[in-house]
Amino acid sequence: MILLHKKLWIPGPTEVKEDVLMEQAKPLFGHRSKDFTLLYDSVLTQLREFFKTEQHVLVITASGTIFMDIAARNLITNEGKALCCVNGSFSSRMHKAIIDSGKKADRMEIDWGKAVTVEMIKEKLETSNYEAVTFCYNETSTGVKADLKAIGELLKNYPDTLLVVDAVSSMGGDMLLPDEWGTDLVFASTQKCFALPPGLAIGIVSQKALDRAKTVPDKGMYINLEAILGYYDKKKQTPSTPNISLLTAFDYKLKQMLTEGAENIYRRHKEMADYTHEWALKHGFGLFAEEGFRSVTVTTVDNREKNMDIDALNKALAEKGLVIANGYGPFKGKTFRIGHMGDHTLDGLKELLAAIEEIWEL
Amino acid sequence: MILLHKKLWIPGPTEVKEDVLMEQAKPLFGHRSKDFTLLYDSVLTQLREFFKTEQHVLVITASGTIFMDIAARNLITNEGKALCCVNGSFSSRMHKAIIDSGKKADRMEIDWGKAVTVEMIKEKLETSNYEAVTFCYNETSTGVKADLKAIGELLKNYPDTLLVVDAVSSMGGDMLLPDEWGTDLVFASTQKCFALPPGLAIGIVSQKALDRAKTVPDKGMYINLEAILGYYDKKKQTPSTPNISLLTAFDYKLKQMLTEGAENIYRRHKEMADYTHEWALKHGFGLFAEEGFRSVTVTTVDNREKNMDIDALNKALAEKGLVIANGYGPFKGKTFRIGHMGDHTLDGLKELLAAIEEIWEL
Repeated sequence: MILLHKKLWIPGPTEVKEDVLMEQAKPLFGHRSKDFTLLYDSVLTQLREFFKTEQHVLVITASGTIFMDIAARNLITNEGKALCCVNGSFSSRMHKAIIDSGKKADRMEIDWGKAVTVEMIKEKLETSNYEAVTFCYNETSTGVKADLKAIGELLKNYPDTLLVVDAVSSMGGDMLLPDEWGTDLVFASTQKCFALPPGLAIGIVSQKALDRAKTVPDKGMYINLEAILGYYDKKKQTPSTPNISLLTAFDYKLKQMLTEGAENIYRRHKEMADYTHEWALKHGFGLFAEEGFRSVTVTTVDNREKNMDIDALNKALAEKGLVIANGYGPFKGKTFRIGHMGDHTLDGLKELLAAIEEIWEL
Repeated sequence: MILLHKKLWIPGPTEVKEDVLMEQAKPLFGHRSKDFTLLYDSVLTQLREFFKTEQHVLVITASGTIFMDIAARNLITNEGKALCCVNGSFSSRMHKAIIDSGKKADRMEIDWGKAVTVEMIKEKLETSNYEAVTFCYNETSTGVKADLKAIGELLKNYPDTLLVVDAVSSMGGDMLLPDEWGTDLVFASTQKCFALPPGLAIGIVSQKALDRAKTVPDKGMYINLEAILGYYDKKKQTPSTPNISLLTAFDYKLKQMLTEGAENIYRRHKEMADYTHEWALKHGFGLFAEEGFRSVTVTTVDNREKNMDIDALNKALAEKGLVIANGYGPFKGKTFRIGHMGDHTLDGLKELLAAIEEIWEL
């Protein structure tokens, strides 16, 4: 069906290297075997090492979105409520997941392109009791990042409020220190900065979050944090059959990531982001994300001034074996997005941007 | 980590052929692309063709277990209750999923090894109103199948009762006609009779089930049937990022299955089951599943008379590159299980059984 592969410069799924893909082509083995126990434990151990964390870690066979249901069902009681900071499509989705699960949540709206700040959250926390605060560390729809470290500092003054963070499009590409920053649930999926195919979601869970989960009724089965983490503690396995092929590739990829080193990976992403920002400004585009809060994994270029045709660009890029992303939802056409995450490098990025310059005669 | 691959004669994950595994090693593409729309629609169209159904079909990135949460959250109201027929570990898990989701369910216990029958269900339906009846078409823990067709006939007299069927270990290997038999939710996962790696779950959903779901509040996000099926109707895509690699392999595998033909596949499985049953009896073993209700995809051999050492057997089989499964839970050691599903053939089965004969000097 696919004639020419288009190198993925979209904000996920991102490009997966051939050696990693080949790990998915290995023969299967049973998920109740010693081999699987070793594999799963190796994945979790490497994740703990990469993120310098002693918190609970789990990998669940699903899209990252499942952690929105997990947060709703496990971390918010029937009586309590969450504060959802919404500045894009994915932070909005988290609010919807909580409401659709029959739990309560206040929605704090922030303009798309703007960041949620410590001050905004502080103001809300002073007026009301919240069992959890939710936001995106990196809003994939806008390319805005939050100052997670600073918000974590603030939350240390509110011991009954859990810090729930959607890090889907930056975990593994932008600095994340769950223990030092005090996150309670931070989650992501494999097809972004881990440069793997989609199919697995990763969660890092504090003891405080797990203790909360123990008090919340009706958590269900597949998304029951207590059950999943308890099963791992007891058997170093998963309660139901996991995606063994993708876990095999994940284990392999984490070895590569630990070899490159978290600091080096974060620096590589920052360099790609800086280069893209300069490139956009140089050619008369704007940057959609406000200064100081620009993502290092996805750049949202503001196209409203120049009004270039993004669909036509992608058609021309396709012939060169490349693809970028249009703007998201209401900002389709008005912005376009370049995902520079995972295994991408500055050299590759320069080739992409040169191709765009050529097509648009910039 | 894995030195010698052991051919999987366990009741899932089952053996995956190399050409199918290689489909998982293809380069990625975006899940909001035309390519993905074509892929996902092709998978669902082929599933509908294989199962001769005009019902709704969905494929969700998860283990099959997620459909237990889906049933609990979507098909049972807060006021109503389900009847769960429990004759093994997986039918029991369904009951637990409903209770753990805060919904009500009566549990009808049946001895492991025995089948749930039309009469048993009829008796219960005459005494109480049930919004759903749940059971396993094929209990993986015991090798017992249900007479789904006959139970479906019965349920046609109870239009307010949904027929919810766990077909995880037999969908694609044993005859299943959702429309003719009147199932409302029947679900499975990829690592059993579809002979794929685990990571995707498949559901076939009647309009009646979807109509029920529309009346049930608090369904959540990731497992919301209405949302998932609605998204497909509108965009022929999935609401969140699916496992593209595994869907690519699924599409490829379904083509192979349609080429072989459902009837031929079912016959091949029946032949393997018959051969295994005869082999067990010939060598003085019993069959754990009662006569008339023996699975065609997994044979549970009763080892209580001969009391052979299953762990030692598997150690010896491993040296020959083979593996079978021990009995499940309370029947570990007392039974052992041979999964003859997916791409396995009678010739391969004969080799396996000959290897067991040699090791045990039967």
